[in-house]
Amino acid sequence: MKYIETLREGERLSEIYLCKTKQVAKTKMGKTYYSLVLQDKTGVVDGKIWELSGGIDHFEALDYIKIDGDVTSFQGALQVNVRRVRMAAAGEYNPADYLPVSSKNIDQMYAELLRFVKSIENEKLRTLAERFFVEDKAFIQSFKGHSAAKTVHHGFVGGLLEHTLSVAQLCDFYCGHYPVLKRDLLIAAALFHDIGKTKELSDFPENDYTDDGQLLGHIVMGTLMVDEKLKTVPGFPHKTASELKHCILAHHGEYEYGSPKKPALAEAIALNFADNTDAKMQTMTELLAGNAGNHDWLGFNRLMDSNVRMSTEL
Amino acid sequence: MKYIETLREGERLSEIYLCKTKQVAKTKMGKTYYSLVLQDKTGVVDGKIWELSGGIDHFEALDYIKIDGDVTSFQGALQVNVRRVRMAAAGEYNPADYLPVSSKNIDQMYAELLRFVKSIENEKLRTLAERFFVEDKAFIQSFKGHSAAKTVHHGFVGGLLEHTLSVAQLCDFYCGHYPVLKRDLLIAAALFHDIGKTKELSDFPENDYTDDGQLLGHIVMGTLMVDEKLKTVPGFPHKTASELKHCILAHHGEYEYGSPKKPALAEAIALNFADNTDAKMQTMTELLAGNAGNHDWLGFNRLMDSNVRMSTEL
Amino acid sequence: MKYIETLREGERLSEIYLCKTKQVAKTKMGKTYYSLVLQDKTGVVDGKIWELSGGIDHFEALDYIKIDGDVTSFQGALQVNVRRVRMAAAGEYNPADYLPVSSKNIDQMYAELLRFVKSIENEKLRTLAERFFVEDKAFIQSFKGHSAAKTVHHGFVGGLLEHTLSVAQLCDFYCGHYPVLKRDLLIAAALFHDIGKTKELSDFPENDYTDDGQLLGHIVMGTLMVDEKLKTVPGFPHKTASELKHCILAHHGEYEYGSPKKPALAEAIALNFADNTDAKMQTMTELLAGNAGNHDWLGFNRLMDSNVRMSTEL
Amino acid sequence: MKYIETLREGERLSEIYLCKTKQVAKTKMGKTYYSLVLQDKTGVVDGKIWELSGGIDHFEALDYIKIDGDVTSFQGALQVNVRRVRMAAAGEYNPADYLPVSSKNIDQMYAELLRFVKSIENEKLRTLAERFFVEDKAFIQSFKGHSAAKTVHHGFVGGLLEHTLSVAQLCDFYCGHYPVLKRDLLIAAALFHDIGKTKELSDFPENDYTDDGQLLGHIVMGTLMVDEKLKTVPGFPHKTASELKHCILAHHGEYEYGSPKKPALAEAIALNFADNTDAKMQTMTELLAGNAGNHDWLGFNRLMDSNVRMSTEL
Amino acid sequence: MKYIETLREGERLSEIYLCKTKQVAKTKMGKTYYSLVLQDKTGVVDGKIWELSGGIDHFEALDYIKIDGDVTSFQGALQVNVRRVRMAAAGEYNPADYLPVSSKNIDQMYAELLRFVKSIENEKLRTLAERFFVEDKAFIQSFKGHSAAKTVHHGFVGGLLEHTLSVAQLCDFYCGHYPVLKRDLLIAAALFHDIGKTKELSDFPENDYTDDGQLLGHIVMGTLMVDEKLKTVPGFPHKTASELKHCILAHHGEYEYGSPKKPALAEAIALNFADNTDAKMQTMTELLAGNAGNHDWLGFNRLMDSNVRMSTEL
Amino acid sequence: MKYIETLREGERLSEIYLCKTKQVAKTKMGKTYYSLVLQDKTGVVDGKIWELSGGIDHFEALDYIKIDGDVTSFQGALQVNVRRVRMAAAGEYNPADYLPVSSKNIDQMYAELLRFVKSIENEKLRTLAERFFVEDKAFIQSFKGHSAAKTVHHGFVGGLLEHTLSVAQLCDFYCGHYPVLKRDLLIAAALFHDIGKTKELSDFPENDYTDDGQLLGHIVMGTLMVDEKLKTVPGFPHKTASELKHCILAHHGEYEYGSPKKPALAEAIALNFADNTDAKMQTMTELLAGNAGNHDWLGFNRLMDSNVRMSTEL
Repeated sequence: MKYIETLREGERLSEIYLCKTKQVAKTKMGKTYYSLVLQDKTGVVDGKIWELSGGIDHFEALDYIKIDGDVTSFQGALQVNVRRVRMAAAGEYNPADYLPVSSKNIDQMYAELLRFVKSIENEKLRTLAERFFVEDKAFIQSFKGHSAAKTVHHGFVGGLLEHTLSVAQLCDFYCGHYPVLKRDLLIAAALFHDIGKTKELSDFPENDYTDDGQLLGHIVMGTLMVDEKLKTVPGFPHKTASELKHCILAHHGEYEYGSPKKPALAEAIALNFADNTDAKMQTMTELLAGNAGNHDWLGFNRLMDSNVRMSTEL
Repeated sequence: MKYIETLREGERLSEIYLCKTKQVAKTKMGKTYYSLVLQDKTGVVDGKIWELSGGIDHFEALDYIKIDGDVTSFQGALQVNVRRVRMAAAGEYNPADYLPVSSKNIDQMYAELLRFVKSIENEKLRTLAERFFVEDKAFIQSFKGHSAAKTVHHGFVGGLLEHTLSVAQLCDFYCGHYPVLKRDLLIAAALFHDIGKTKELSDFPENDYTDDGQLLGHIVMGTLMVDEKLKTVPGFPHKTASELKHCILAHHGEYEYGSPKKPALAEAIALNFADNTDAKMQTMTELLAGNAGNHDWLGFNRLMDSNVRMSTEL
Repeated sequence: MKYIETLREGERLSEIYLCKTKQVAKTKMGKTYYSLVLQDKTGVVDGKIWELSGGIDHFEALDYIKIDGDVTSFQGALQVNVRRVRMAAAGEYNPADYLPVSSKNIDQMYAELLRFVKSIENEKLRTLAERFFVEDKAFIQSFKGHSAAKTVHHGFVGGLLEHTLSVAQLCDFYCGHYPVLKRDLLIAAALFHDIGKTKELSDFPENDYTDDGQLLGHIVMGTLMVDEKLKTVPGFPHKTASELKHCILAHHGEYEYGSPKKPALAEAIALNFADNTDAKMQTMTELLAGNAGNHDWLGFNRLMDSNVRMSTEL
Repeated sequence: MKYIETLREGERLSEIYLCKTKQVAKTKMGKTYYSLVLQDKTGVVDGKIWELSGGIDHFEALDYIKIDGDVTSFQGALQVNVRRVRMAAAGEYNPADYLPVSSKNIDQMYAELLRFVKSIENEKLRTLAERFFVEDKAFIQSFKGHSAAKTVHHGFVGGLLEHTLSVAQLCDFYCGHYPVLKRDLLIAAALFHDIGKTKELSDFPENDYTDDGQLLGHIVMGTLMVDEKLKTVPGFPHKTASELKHCILAHHGEYEYGSPKKPALAEAIALNFADNTDAKMQTMTELLAGNAGNHDWLGFNRLMDSNVRMSTEL
Repeated sequence: MKYIETLREGERLSEIYLCKTKQVAKTKMGKTYYSLVLQDKTGVVDGKIWELSGGIDHFEALDYIKIDGDVTSFQGALQVNVRRVRMAAAGEYNPADYLPVSSKNIDQMYAELLRFVKSIENEKLRTLAERFFVEDKAFIQSFKGHSAAKTVHHGFVGGLLEHTLSVAQLCDFYCGHYPVLKRDLLIAAALFHDIGKTKELSDFPENDYTDDGQLLGHIVMGTLMVDEKLKTVPGFPHKTASELKHCILAHHGEYEYGSPKKPALAEAIALNFADNTDAKMQTMTELLAGNAGNHDWLGFNRLMDSNVRMSTEL
Repeated sequence: MKYIETLREGERLSEIYLCKTKQVAKTKMGKTYYSLVLQDKTGVVDGKIWELSGGIDHFEALDYIKIDGDVTSFQGALQVNVRRVRMAAAGEYNPADYLPVSSKNIDQMYAELLRFVKSIENEKLRTLAERFFVEDKAFIQSFKGHSAAKTVHHGFVGGLLEHTLSVAQLCDFYCGHYPVLKRDLLIAAALFHDIGKTKELSDFPENDYTDDGQLLGHIVMGTLMVDEKLKTVPGFPHKTASELKHCILAHHGEYEYGSPKKPALAEAIALNFADNTDAKMQTMTELLAGNAGNHDWLGFNRLMDSNVRMSTEL
């Protein structure tokens, strides 16, 4: 496959890409043309279809399309002049080639997540975790393929899993470091804290806010999901159920970040730190990785509320 | 019955009161005594038991107690010197005499609330409302006897009902005034918006934040209650369910007031105004009623963030 | 008349429009041309005058001009290529066809407003209201023709009247609902609360902030207007005058929204709610009306501080 | 006269003081007594009247009273046990002995203020200033005797004059330093900026917020006062009138400090700095003067939002 | 030694305590007495000296004093009625018995800290760390004996060391977890981040803000200390020096918490999280330890901005 | 020399300018061209090099270049079509012609600054000031040639000196006006308050934030510079050193503006006012000077947080 990051001006192209967006526009002369964004996992490139002739089959945004065209350059950026388009058939391409994806092995990460599930000593909490992460096949599939965000950080296939695992690892370290923490409650809360994101964001390739995501948000939807499953675990203690839901509700730490309650238990405070630490460190990791070897200032970063740069090599 | 607001210095007293609080203290001489707050629906008075002799039976805070004593005065306030105490028997008193209670008739208010339930034209939303307000006896009893707040406003038996009805009436007026509003959704949201308070605050006479109230809050608990009942209404449309839950979640209007989402639908915006308007107007009503005929400045009010006073008679 | 919302590409045009703006620009070849925005009450369209030949008479922005030209399309939007222009004569057009205007009948609304004036029982307050709304012809004309805002909501001829009437109706409902409110004071305050807008915004078609509007604002200017008229009502009680001015000053509710005082009277609190409720509900009404039948998310709305959408049909 | 700051335990006392407050209270035994605060210009002292016998004539708070009594000590503070009280007659005392007063000569300060009035070159602005500071006897008397604040800074007789003069002097310096400033406008605005305080605070000895002060505030009342007088100056230019009122309205600089407009003219910005600089420097002056020679930390100061202390002698 | 937490009413006492505070007061009868707070490492108790007779030698606050007296009870709290007092001689007591002290072994913690120093691979950074933690005897003694705060958390002897070590351990874990971090820079920054506290807070037993602490703060003083020592390490790279100082300056993360710069490097972000996580987790640890076995709500905690409680046993 | 502000369309040009920026771009046809910003002290103009032929020598941004070309006009703005370019030789131009520069005489301002240095009576403080402003030649050269800001105000050669002198003059006036101020401390603090800007911003013509500026900021760097020089003044009192550093640290007045401490001394408060007053008055001066004779509203100004305009001529 010819990846987008390897395209060079002047090449002829005959390849399948994901059509991320498609817009209908008009030239000054009043002629209709299509403006596309073509995507694979290595990046995106603009495409133009100037002649809407017979060689251009019907397609829509988010379709996989086989295009024939030429790589040109416009105002310093590459552009594909598309001459022919047709819908790609199901077996012709591998979706994994077209989506941003975790650099880590998803199955290995999931296996490690399951070890965290098994490490919960309290039978009720472990059973609850198994209801989601062992027994609920639809949930598991969605969870493994989801991002943790539309953009910002962990915005790729497997991102939700990678973030959840990382938060659980941070919490595990905290439990060794701060004896005041009850490990079973904290690890369970870490595993569940972002499961609402499977409903807040649509599946790839769209990966955008859903209607429910906008109306309810992942914090409340995750709490509702846990509340429903709790009823399938006989004898689950009411106090522990409330504390677990509290940890999920409070994990953003501040009202202004969408938590309807401030953390009131040591475990809720710890979860908030783990989530926040991982979000910001991963954002820096992605940002600096995208500027490898560059020690210049990278401009104002909204999440950090500061101009940022990589530190000097020692 | 001898109501507390009618007590006068020098009277002998033999009456049943609710013991709101009981504290054990010591005189400078090291002698143990009890310091009580006695309550009926007309107010509270301090009580002291200086002699813990045989005439003082065992009792605890929130018990109804029969006391014998004398009304005295200390530093300008009345005080009851208690000589004898015993627990009151169940039939000896009527709890309604001891709790602050709505000045309006609870059954009439509830009947009006049911007319709102019946006025919902959409069958699914009306059925959902009936699940709570017609069919769920335990919920109905709790809802009718609850306050809408620990203090601030509507802090009395029937207060939750009175506030809910008033918010529904405001919303009803809005629906006539602003055609953009969908009445069924708004009235249903008005009826449900504070049902979580039946779990956030304990029953009278305690009327204090519960453990769940502190961990989860009435906004999320009300959403969970609606979410659970929704499953008992076959074919309830998913979109409407999400919009209804959104209205409940967003009814405080601002993150800093505990809403995890800002109002995003016209109905959610209207509900937020109805709730806020009623809370502040009722607070002013209670405040000015407690200072009848007084046109002086009443001091800084935290909710209004201002010194306040009654306006001049015209 | 050929309304702008009915124009189609390819049409020849000979019509009078309001020239909202006029800018002088140059082509890459250095040739001077005019770029116009043409307006009638149904909308706006861009106009270009490429040839500044003899057929182009002198005109300025905010003139009514008779244009001859062709409707073309550029980058998906219509554009009028203007060949000839002359100033329209006074009798050739009806200004009402060129300005956004309330969908409600202005005279009927004003009649209803006068019923509110007459309903004030206190003679002094009613006389004061009559000084403005019955006796002051210049004020009445300005008030009826004004918008309530440059943009955001009620930004059309009659908008100030429509908003004022709606706020008075909300306050009237409050008075029935909350006995603590003194109706005469609240209705008078509702009628006067935005009269300063007749000075804050210039008349249509300009409808923009005046110099005084920027320096003083409608809240203070309205207070000054009331203060001046008060002197023409013999025996107006000082206390009531101060309370009325307080209601006007405090009607934005918060310092950060330009109120130099927080509401301190029940009537001032009620007026603030009526004003705020009407502003936001009307904003939603205009926004959703402009997207009729569209249940998609409409994007972030600054006033609501949220992405918004219309709720689902039930 | 025997000043309060010179009282010593054990002295017999027969002196006239201002009775700042008077409260009726009861001893544990139920006996009524009066608790007073006695004031002269050197400070305050508590007074107690334990025996309400024939020697105690009728008097109220803010009366000047002749008392006979003994200076005692209670919990480390002096206290006057009052045996006899009568109302002091008009000629028996000099009010100036009983009120905090500027350390500067009021007439000299006023003379300097008048030189500022005369230095305004623009005839209209100077005439307006003369309307207040030369022609309006009632205003002049009130202005010279007023404080600039209830507490915080300049809370003494002459304080309003002293602050106004100091602000004018700062503005005068700014005019020499920053040629962009128009001196006539800025000096006039400085003279008028706090005249509303003559209505916001009652006269001494009460010196407390008036009803109008709470409802309208000195910023708006000063603007109203200027607006009214402006009508007595024929041909006063409208633009200058608006700019002058703007300077008054904006002189607190921030919405949250009660200014309904932010400074938009260079002169308004300069006035805001002069007012703020003088308020804080005078607060520090009064604070450090009250702790003469003390270089310790003086505790958290709310206005400075910091713990403060005097700097070290060099 | 008779520890304060073991005192019982009725006991006779002859023991050395630290006199934390000493105040001179008067009884209602005008008799002078002393009010003391006596302290050892197990807590504090009030003391009263009613008779300032010959048995009471001269002493001041923060002196170690030998007292003879009786343990009594007043309003439910113990109180020592002191009959005789003399200054304790240097060898009579062990200061360690009188000060709150870390529950961990200070020398073991310091040894672990030195292992972190040695683990820094970059020679310049390691040398700089050795300048402080190996070579500067006065600094080492002060650092080991200091608290990390006046109150709130780690407010005991060894607290600064314990907190610094814990932050270094968290950072060490981060370095393994997030490859983007440069371990040498982060570990060095962790070791130095709070060294300014040795100058911000005075030594025990006073442990209060110093004059320099109030004027400059530990963030800037720590930066100055590092800046000065840097000059003793030949060839220390300028960029690394600036980055290290940046990490110290930015470690509070927000301007409002006293950091003049927001974290702009991944290492500065990580240090901010480690510091904040440790401060809050230690606060919860101390709070819950002080309420062992208590699962009730413990009241509003200012640092957490929430009511808090211990989570339920699983 | 042909200054940029005098260029007219159609002129032939052969002149040396500073090349402020240089960007490589491509036409739609794919042809490479250069887009330049040319600068002299009167302003900037765009330049285009369409033909990268032999007449175009190598040069980079911030080089002084000799250009031959034609002045044309594009979309209403002038543009220079450059035909030939070569590097200018050192003696061919005077840098002072190419940089924005103070309208005041730099040497005269510096002489006045030195009079302030000499006016410090305390020998230690005066010696410290001399260490910088008399003895440190490198510092003096940098200080005299620096701006006080990248943009906003005083963004020109000599701007730092002009601002520092103006702040010292304001402080000098304050010292006469407020006897509570210690002149030596305040004048010294005024002189030093922004010396860190010599390191925060690079020299002209770049005048941009340095790496150290971003990591540490001028407030802390100025404090470090003073701290280092202090060690060269034998016997400098520790208290005064701390107070001086405090004044520098606190001169922005608020945490959110980068001051790690709030002003706690009268002198620190005064310095904060002087700095803030001068910054805003100079911003207004530059803004209004750039719109001479224009009394229209100039649009929203971020520093003033308001739309601004020049006040009317009296």
